[in-house]
This record gives sequence, structure tokens and C-alpha cells, in this order.
Amino acid sequence: MQKVQLKWTKGFQFIVRDDLGHEIIIDTKKEVGGTETGFQPIDLILVSLAGCMAFDIVSILQKKKVDLKSFVAEVEGERCSEHPKRYTKITVKFKANREVNKEDITRAYEISQDKYCSVLATLKNPPAIEFKIE
Amino acid sequence: MQKVQLKWTKGFQFIVRDDLGHEIIIDTKKEVGGTETGFQPIDLILVSLAGCMAFDIVSILQKKKVDLKSFVAEVEGERCSEHPKRYTKITVKFKANREVNKEDITRAYEISQDKYCSVLATLKNPPAIEFKIE
Repeated sequence: MQKVQLKWTKGFQFIVRDDLGHEIIIDTKKEVGGTETGFQPIDLILVSLAGCMAFDIVSILQKKKVDLKSFVAEVEGERCSEHPKRYTKITVKFKANREVNKEDITRAYEISQDKYCSVLATLKNPPAIEFKIE
Repeated sequence: MQKVQLKWTKGFQFIVRDDLGHEIIIDTKKEVGGTETGFQPIDLILVSLAGCMAFDIVSILQKKKVDLKSFVAEVEGERCSEHPKRYTKITVKFKANREVNKEDITRAYEISQDKYCSVLATLKNPPAIEFKIE
């Protein structure tokens, strides 16, 4: 079971806390009334996906004894212009130091994609979502 | 277009940066080789969903001139035990100060759910996802 708590501070700012006590701030853009003090929730779905895959890829490349020196994931999301402005397309780009074969990275993300990435599997198979008022 | 960059540091730790320059750390649990220095990617999908809805709810309640003093969202996710361990169920609990009518909170999350929440709409309608190696 994964758990997080979001506590409203002011405006659209919330302090978010996980089970291990890590905290991050979420907020939104000034143009929609926020104060831009932290990540937007909509961006965190991109972080979640790219992060989960990146963990798998780094892990797989290291098990292969690949000489990994740098690794970057860049992720972009295109949204509908109409409410609810959902993501219609997400593009994740992976880049490692040039000594790493692109085929090795491709094989690693395919393994992540087909077998291990929990976030990708959640995005592809919508979970049941329940709301409660306490 | 939403954009984020994830840069590997060591182990399973990445520094994540958004377009406005905010940074967060992601990492994973010690039991799977991480160092627990930041949020897990799998938790951020919960933050994304609960945060997006919480923004809508706070906004709607304030427009209604409700006397909102505190607002907390708690979100839990149940995962499959088998790989890829996707979320099968997500439960979001909302709690405000007791002066706020539960009916007002219910109406607010229904509006978010039906009309505005970009993250919920993305979870319900899987986006196209593309990977590139650079």
C-alpha cells in the first residue's frame, strides 16, 4: 500500500508528505492564481512515468555491466485544449553517455515497458478510483 | 506542452526539474537498492491525482465563499503483487475544517471529477506514449 498526504497551506499551495517523511511543495502557475512555489500536479504524472522507467533502465544497464556515466530522461506531455485538458500524448526521451549502445538502452526500456514499469501499466490499465469525504 | 527533465545522480537517485526551475529528488526504498532520499515515482502518480483534484476543490469552495480553514487530501494506492505491480485501486479522502458542509465538498469533487481534473481524465483515457533514444 502506497500512501501520501497533501496539506493545504494557502492559495493553491500544498505540502505533500510521503510515508518516509519526504516533503515536496505543489503549486500552480500565476496565470491561474497560483504562486509558482512548487511542481504542478499535472507535471508529476510525467515525473512518475519517466522516473519509474528510468529506475528500471538504470538498473538493467548496470546489471549488464554497461559503463553508465550519465543518464537523462526528458518527458513532454501534450494536452487537449478543452477541459479537462487531459494528456493525449506523452513522449519520453532517454539519453546516456555516448559509450552506451543505443541498442542496450532500447532493450532496457522494452523490458521496463513490457514487464516492470508499474506507472506505465497503471496508465494503460485504469485503476478503480474511489473518493471519500471525512 | 508540459515538460520535465530527470537527471541521474547515483544509485536510483534522480534530480527532477520542471520548466520553472523547481527541483525535487526521486529515489526508492532501501529494500530494493535505493537510498530513500526522495519521493518514489510510484507515489507521485497519487500526488498528481490528489493534487489536481484538491486544487479544483479548494478553488470551487472558495468561489462559493465557504469558510475554508484547513483542507487535507489523503491518498492510498493498492497494487498488484505481481510485476508490473500496477495500481488496481486508488482511494482519495478529503477532509476540511468541520464548519465546511460535506455536501459542498462532495459537489466540488464531483465538478472536478466530471469536468476539470486533467489527471483523473488522463488516468481514465490512456494517452499515447512514445519513447525515443537520443
